[in-house]
This record gives sequence, C-alpha cells and structure tokens, in this order.
Amino acid sequence: MTAVKVEIRTGAYYDSVILMQLQSSLDGMDGIIDTGVVMGTDANKDILAQSDLLVPEAKAAAPDDLVIVLRATDEATAEEALGKIDELLTRKRSTEDQDYVPKSLEMAEELLPNAQWTLISVPGRYAAGVARESLRMGKHAFLFSDNVSVEDEVALKKSAAEKGLFVMGPDCGTAIVNGIGLGFANRVRKGNIGMVAASGTGLQQVSVRIHQLGGGLTHALGTGGRDLKEDVGGITAKMGLDYFVRDPDTKVIVLVSKPPAPKVADELLRSARKAGKPVVVDFIGYTPPAPKLGNLHFVRTFDEAAKLAVELAQQTEEEAAKEPVVDTSKFVDGQKYLRGLFSGGTLAFEALLILQDYLPVVWSNAPIKKGHNVLKNSLKSEEHTVVDLGEDEFTVGRLHPMMDNTLRIQRLLQEADDPEVAVILLDVVLGYGSHINPASELAPAIEKAIAKAKAAGRHLEVVAVVSGTDEDPQGMDEQIEMLEKAGVFVSTSNDVVVRYAGQLVQALSQPAEEAKEFVFTPVDLDGLKQPLAGLNAGLESFAESIKDQDAEAMHVDWRPPAGGNEKLMKILERMKGIK
Amino acid sequence: MTAVKVEIRTGAYYDSVILMQLQSSLDGMDGIIDTGVVMGTDANKDILAQSDLLVPEAKAAAPDDLVIVLRATDEATAEEALGKIDELLTRKRSTEDQDYVPKSLEMAEELLPNAQWTLISVPGRYAAGVARESLRMGKHAFLFSDNVSVEDEVALKKSAAEKGLFVMGPDCGTAIVNGIGLGFANRVRKGNIGMVAASGTGLQQVSVRIHQLGGGLTHALGTGGRDLKEDVGGITAKMGLDYFVRDPDTKVIVLVSKPPAPKVADELLRSARKAGKPVVVDFIGYTPPAPKLGNLHFVRTFDEAAKLAVELAQQTEEEAAKEPVVDTSKFVDGQKYLRGLFSGGTLAFEALLILQDYLPVVWSNAPIKKGHNVLKNSLKSEEHTVVDLGEDEFTVGRLHPMMDNTLRIQRLLQEADDPEVAVILLDVVLGYGSHINPASELAPAIEKAIAKAKAAGRHLEVVAVVSGTDEDPQGMDEQIEMLEKAGVFVSTSNDVVVRYAGQLVQALSQPAEEAKEFVFTPVDLDGLKQPLAGLNAGLESFAESIKDQDAEAMHVDWRPPAGGNEKLMKILERMKGIK
Repeated sequence: MTAVKVEIRTGAYYDSVILMQLQSSLDGMDGIIDTGVVMGTDANKDILAQSDLLVPEAKAAAPDDLVIVLRATDEATAEEALGKIDELLTRKRSTEDQDYVPKSLEMAEELLPNAQWTLISVPGRYAAGVARESLRMGKHAFLFSDNVSVEDEVALKKSAAEKGLFVMGPDCGTAIVNGIGLGFANRVRKGNIGMVAASGTGLQQVSVRIHQLGGGLTHALGTGGRDLKEDVGGITAKMGLDYFVRDPDTKVIVLVSKPPAPKVADELLRSARKAGKPVVVDFIGYTPPAPKLGNLHFVRTFDEAAKLAVELAQQTEEEAAKEPVVDTSKFVDGQKYLRGLFSGGTLAFEALLILQDYLPVVWSNAPIKKGHNVLKNSLKSEEHTVVDLGEDEFTVGRLHPMMDNTLRIQRLLQEADDPEVAVILLDVVLGYGSHINPASELAPAIEKAIAKAKAAGRHLEVVAVVSGTDEDPQGMDEQIEMLEKAGVFVSTSNDVVVRYAGQLVQALSQPAEEAKEFVFTPVDLDGLKQPLAGLNAGLESFAESIKDQDAEAMHVDWRPPAGGNEKLMKILERMKGIK
Repeated sequence: MTAVKVEIRTGAYYDSVILMQLQSSLDGMDGIIDTGVVMGTDANKDILAQSDLLVPEAKAAAPDDLVIVLRATDEATAEEALGKIDELLTRKRSTEDQDYVPKSLEMAEELLPNAQWTLISVPGRYAAGVARESLRMGKHAFLFSDNVSVEDEVALKKSAAEKGLFVMGPDCGTAIVNGIGLGFANRVRKGNIGMVAASGTGLQQVSVRIHQLGGGLTHALGTGGRDLKEDVGGITAKMGLDYFVRDPDTKVIVLVSKPPAPKVADELLRSARKAGKPVVVDFIGYTPPAPKLGNLHFVRTFDEAAKLAVELAQQTEEEAAKEPVVDTSKFVDGQKYLRGLFSGGTLAFEALLILQDYLPVVWSNAPIKKGHNVLKNSLKSEEHTVVDLGEDEFTVGRLHPMMDNTLRIQRLLQEADDPEVAVILLDVVLGYGSHINPASELAPAIEKAIAKAKAAGRHLEVVAVVSGTDEDPQGMDEQIEMLEKAGVFVSTSNDVVVRYAGQLVQALSQPAEEAKEFVFTPVDLDGLKQPLAGLNAGLESFAESIKDQDAEAMHVDWRPPAGGNEKLMKILERMKGIK
C-alpha cells in the first residue's frame, strides 16, 4: 500500500529551477514513486490530478503556495523525504562559482559596474520594479518574466526610450548581444546580420539556421511578444531597427514577429523602407503585399528568412549596386503609367501575374483571365498596359516580334509621347531564331524615345529583361551593354525587372505619406559592442550561461522586496527615487 | 509631294522571313520613305493604316494576298522600287550553304536519313499535313506553325503516341534537344535537368536562368500551349515527363505551363509524384496546394523554378538521402492523426501555419486565430492537434518545457496510447537556458512510446526539429544522433519536419486513387541522345540555326501541295498513304 504525503508552504518564493532541482532530488530517493513540486495554480492542480497526486490539501492551495506532494512505498519513507526538503532547498541555492552573492541590484552594480544589462526573471508582479531600478541605473533590461501588465510595459519602454535604453520583453525569452546569448539562446557566430524579433523560438530558429548556413549576427534583439501590438506600438522593435540601420557592421536586417497590429506594421515597414540596406521581413502568417518592396524582402517561413538573409549578407558590393533603387523623384506630375511591350507571350503572362502584387488593374490583349481587363484595341494602351506583340493580331502574315522589331519600335515611340507614361517595360529574347542583333535596333529607338520625353520635360524609365545566355549567337553581354548605354535598366530575370517597374508605378500612384515618427534617444552603437556584462535577478542559470560564454555576470540573490507586500514595495521604490 | 504605290500578289506564298528581308531591302533604297510588306489580314491593314499606307487597293486585299506598299519621294522612285521586287524575292530565296534544296520531305529524308526530327513552320493550314508525313517517316515533329485545328492536334498526337514519337506543338516556339536549340532557343549548356514546357518564352527564360546559375539541361521539350488543355489531355507533356522519369541522365525535372485544365494537372501531377526524382512545377499563376508535396516542388516564378532546379540538381546523394520519403504503408487502419507537442511557442505557431497547407483543421491551445480551433482542454488532444507546452496553463509556477521535459514526456506516452495517432511532432530547442541534455530524457521516452505502439500492432512516426548550432553547449550532433537512434526523423529546419508530418497525415486521410493512365509507346531514350539531325519545312532560318549549332539540317523548298488546293491536297496525301 503506497502513501501520499503533502506539504504546503504558504507565500514562499522559489524560482522554478530550484523547484525542478528539488523535484528531481526527491524523485531520485529510494522508495519515492512519484512527486509533484509546483506552485498551487489551477493548471498545476490539473497536472497533479493526472498523476493522482491532487490530495485535498493540494486542492485547497493558493496560487502563491508551494505544493510538494509525494507518493512513496510507505508512510515512513514519505515522511523522511519531506523532512529533507529544507536541506535540499538550502543546498540547491548555493552559487558555486560566485564567491559573494549580493542581495540587491545596487550591490551587484558596485561589484560589476561595467554591466550594460540586467537580466530579469523574477515573478511577474515584481519584475516591473526590478526593470525600473535597472533603467534608473542606466542599464538595458532583458525582461524574461511574464505576467507583467501592459501598462507597466508601456511605461517602462517609454522611460527607456527617453534614455536610449532597450527594454526587451516582458516575456522576452531570448536575445544575442555581441555574440553572447541571453536567456534561451543559441551559440551563433558573429557576422553582419542584425535581427529584431518579437518571438522567442522564432528568433532562435532563424538565428540557428543563419549559423547553419554559414552566416552570423551582429546582435539579435528580442522585443517580447506584445511589443508590436497597438498598445505598445513597437517601441523596442523601432529602436532595434533604428540601431541596425545606423550600425555600419550590420549589412542585412531581419524582422521576425507574429503579425503586428496593422498600424505598427505600417510604421515599422515605413522606417524599414528607409533603412538603406536590405530588410528581410517574416511577419509569420501575414500576407505581404509583394515578395519584394524596394529593400524589403517578405518571406513566409523562418527557413526562408535565414536563407535570404545569408544570401543578401554574402552579396558583393557589385551585386548590391545592381539592385534597382526605386526613385520616383525623376518623374513629373501626371506621369504614372506602365506600358509593357512584350515579344514573349509567357514573359508577358508572368509580368501580368507579378504586377498583381503592385497594381489593381493592368490592361492587356492577352490577360491572365480570359475576358478580364481586355484592351479594347491592342494598338492602343490604356492606363497600365501590358501588350503581347506576339499575339495573332500582330503576327498573322508578319514576322514574330522576336525576329522583327519594327512594330515594337513604332509602339515604343508612340508610348513615349504619352505624357502619362512613366515606365516602359520590354523583353529582349535572345537565342537562335530570334533577331540576330535586337539591341542594335532597339537601343537607338529607346534613346530616341527617352529624348522625346526629355524634350517634353519628362523622364522616361525604360526597363528590359534580356533573356539569353553568354553562348547565344547575339552575345548577351554586348546586347546588355548597348541597352544600358541607351539608358535602360537591364536584368536577365523577368522577375527582377517586372518587380522594379511595378514598384515604380505603384509608388507614383500612391505618394508616400509621412507617418508621425516615434521619437526616442537612439541607443548608443558602441555600448552594445563592448564585452557583455550583466546583472541577473531571478533564474540563476541565466547568470551561469553568461559565464559559460566567457562573459561577465553578477547573480543577485533577489528576494521579493518588503516580503512581497505590495504597499511596502511601492514605498520602498519611492524611497529609492524610482517613479 | 510624296507618292504612294502598291502592288498586290494574289495567292502567293512567301515565308515571313523573306517578307521581312524584302521590306528591309526596300527600306534601304534611296528615295524610299516608308514601306509595308505584309499579308493582307485585317490586323495588318490596321497597322498599314497607322503609317498612312492603307491605300484602297491594300484595303481590298484578301488575307492570302501579299501586299507591298511604298511611300517614295516621287512616283518614278516608287515605280523603280516596285520593279525590283521580283529580283529581290529571288535573290533572297537562294540557300547559301546548302548545295541542293530538295522539294519534298521525302527527298530531304533520302539526303539526310539519320534525321530524327522534322521542323515544321509552314502556314497553319498546311502544317498538319507535313506533320503527318513526318510521323509516317518515323520522325518526331517540332510543329512551330500555329493555326492548326485542335482536332488535327489530337489526331497527330495520338498517332505519334502509338509510335513513340513526340509532336511538339502546334505553336511550339522552342525546344532544346541534346544541346541543340530548335525554333527560338538559347544556347544552354548540357546538364542533368530535364524540362517539359507548354510555353515558349517560359521555357526560354527558365532554361537561360538555369544556365546563368551554372546548371544545364538534358533536353527541354516543348509541348505547344494547348497540350495541357482538356481537349488534348497533355499527351506530349505526359510523354515528355515519362521520358525524363526513365532517363538516368536526368536528375531533376521541371514542368512549366500556364495553369493546365484541372483534370490534366491532376493526371500529370500524379505521374510526377511517382517520378522517383524531384519535379519542380511552375504552373504559372496556379495556386499550389503546398510548396512541397513529396518530390513535387511548387514555385511561383521562372526565377524560382530555375533556382530550385539548379539547387536540387547540385544536391549530393547524401543530401538527397536525407529528404524524408512520405510512406504511409507502415501505418495500420485507423491511424490518421498528428499530435504536435511543442516547447517553442513560435515554432508551434509556424507549424500551425504550415499545416494549413495539408490539413483543414488542427486544434491547438495557441491557435493562429484567437478563438478558432481551440482545444477544449489543453491536456487532451483532439483529432489533429498542436499543443504549445510553453503556454501559461502549463508553466505558471513550473519550469518552461525547454528546461523541463517531464510534462512533455507524460504527454508523449499518453499520445502513443491513442490508436488514432500516426505521427508525433516535437521540437527540441538547444542553446543556453535550455535543458542541458534534452535527448537523454526524450530519446528513451520516445523509444518507449514507439515500443508501446508497436506492442499494440501500430507504427508510430516521431519527427523532431532540433533547433540549435554546433557550438551550443548540448552538442547538436550528439543530440540528433540520440534522437535518430531512438527512431526519430530529425531535421534542423522546422519547415522540413512540419511539412513531412503534414504530408504523412494528409496522405493517411486521403488514400491516393489510381487515375486511369494514358497508354503510349515510350519514346526511345537513346534516340534523343544521338547527334541531332532535322528536316526543315518552312522558315529557312530554323535550318540555318541548327547548322550554326554544328548539327545537321536539311532545308526543304516546301511549297503548298497542289498549289494550295485543299481537295487536291487530300487526294495527294491519300496517294502517299497518309491517313
């Protein structure tokens, strides 16, 4: 006959690592069959019930109570085990590699004055107080604790923003600063990718995939899951983004978050657009407007985020310089339309598909969906238009436009005369069968078209996909050179040129409103690049992890102030001058 | 005062290259301002009108009539130019590098008996006849001509399928066979990627991007745009796919087409699923069920298709062996559900998102959309379930499941007892802060779970993402090894494991019905690997292109049989024994 014994410790505070250690010590004793060492919450009671350990005393426990339940082979064994609890709790609390454990943050700071960070993993209702104290000391706060109110979060972050400090969290599980992992964090090599993440295992998965793919991080900054909700307004995310924008060591920025509040997403993406460096965005489950918007790259999974970030981070300056910059300042008022003049039917079809990401309606003689957005007259463009010049109405009894440029050149000059046209999009298909030197005819015509527009005071942007190989009879490089000399933006990828054209005319039709910017003191770039040192209040293992990474940490033997009495806590805070 | 002169040649047949050459010769003459050399179709008349060349005689011309209009500085110059037309047409028709130009396919074949192909670019109404003759001779047909009826297309393809011959087209613009481009085709290096494409410039763009990225082709087979419509049923595409499936030199297959008829897409994808090699599918604008279904990889653009094909083609055997094979034969009746037990909240969230590609409903305590598909009780799974064990109900007053495996192991064993469970999905998050050796606890528990299921006659598939780096304190490789030894399918990518799990349970809930297979004689593998030789009827430039590529071609001085008289043509065909 087995015996179940229970002990309740009212109002006791133990961090959960201690509890786990206690449980595993008890589990390891002879004659002990099962144990439950939990705080007395309803959820924990359900779990105890599953193991048949929910005796009436445990059932009656309050959420603040420590509940220890044992099932042993007999009563004596159970009693004996319970008798060892005090000893076990004491033994487990000794900090092995820290000679002296200060009792307060203030004392800890005196011992480790170069600490830039405070790691806070005390129970939620005490966490904001510790964070306030940390900010008062001028230290960034890594706030692992959850169950912190949103009001406290906003107040902490606003106060931190004034001081140029980060508050990561509450409920921030992970961060990597200058190569050192905080909280739950992987050992990721240093590099040129900066991450801002509102999700813990999201940050971890993307950062480890970056490492696995050969990339590395400047920092990975956590924000806590609520940061990008409307209440908080993305304060930490915006400050983190701003840090990486200014940081010369960061070449590529990665943003990871569950879908933010629309207003916050909008503000964050507007800032990101102006980053002057690539930003990979994984708003998990968010339907992005397009895979690419200027320097923003939208991805759908952590895997894609990591792959793309590493790819962009490895891009040479030469390659990066080839990326088109969407700049609408060259155009004059009234210029807004795109005209695509294609010789390749499927290239035109793909262009129409891709343009759906940027424009609500594009007219065509060969539309994606039969009968939808059909040009009334193939010879005359309307608004945004993509014409397939290889369609029957142009080719019956004539040469295909891949062989004969006459019609296309005629149409090009016609479009150039239209004061509403901003961008002309062409394909130049090389290879056997095609015109043997299309650029020799197209380039002068394009020069003429650009000159005509210029004479009328307009800028005409001509973009072309050259579809060919270096072994094609036309000589791809020479073809590209001739077109570029004529002022054409050229790529060998249909995707690249169509997205560039789409973004240009999209930007022309929706002039960017300036959002009211959130004002904050920028975080000092160099501060985060010093060897990391952190004070630690809460889970002792977090201090040990930092030391394991050869950085400095000072664990604080933190206890609820005023014995957890909230009134007294407030008074104490006021006495310390924390508002 | 300028003068406009016109000449109409009734019922004359000239191929369009000749007409372009004529036009450019006339354009180059002194005193000639503008010219139009076109067949008298309505569309061409519109184009003449745009240049103010649509004089009444031209307006009255029939579609079969050759219309030559000139605008010159004066009447005499115009007359003089018209007088040179015969000479120009004759001069341009001489074939410079072919001593003798046979007048029929039969004669051409005697001169080039090793020709495997006939290139056909004669006007549409004659094209089917030439293709029938080609098939009778046992040659594949590259049918560039358009305006061939769908009835002719079906009849030609059925007859070809019986003989193990390809009919590419009608309206097939391009193909690359054994390194030699047919029609409009680029010079693409040889390699291990096989393409089947129903779109001309789609094939070209994907093939050149493959080349630019360092990849190469076995062949790129065109089908013509109508092949994947319901009428034709994808005959050529299916034969092409079958060729590449059997071909040991082809490692990766790429399918490119505008969205096929649903029935044809379904049949083609079923065959592709059984290919035993990766198949990249770009059904341009088609919304695929998932980015990955077994060996099928769905992409959205030509760029992605090329990138992925090259990546897969460069995969080592070792890497390929790591790809999970979706095999449902291990399970017994009644096993159908997935149970995801996550410690990482965002990993669980991404899993739920990815599973949307495979399963209509997945229950969770932390669903994607608040209040949707919420588990009634977090402790009890329903149907397909993903539980985030890091949610508050599991962690208040307890350690996080990334540190403490107790709850997860309990739940794992509970799920293993459920006879409806087929797959259990776990994450193992390494790094500082996490449990120092999670596999040491999880692996034995998983072994136990698998053994329990086995004892009950079931197979339990356990899959796990290990999120970590080789520098993490746990030692990622050792963690993976322990889990693999316990029988777990492990990947370091959440995407990979979730998709694998999703595909498994999807397959279990939708047993694959066998579609009625289209029966045909397989195309001889080696036939296409001999040095290419082709007969050419129609555009002379196509024969020249083949010769430029150092392959053999025999141009035929093809003329409409029986002077274009349809009755006589039929009789002639019957006399030759073509049905």
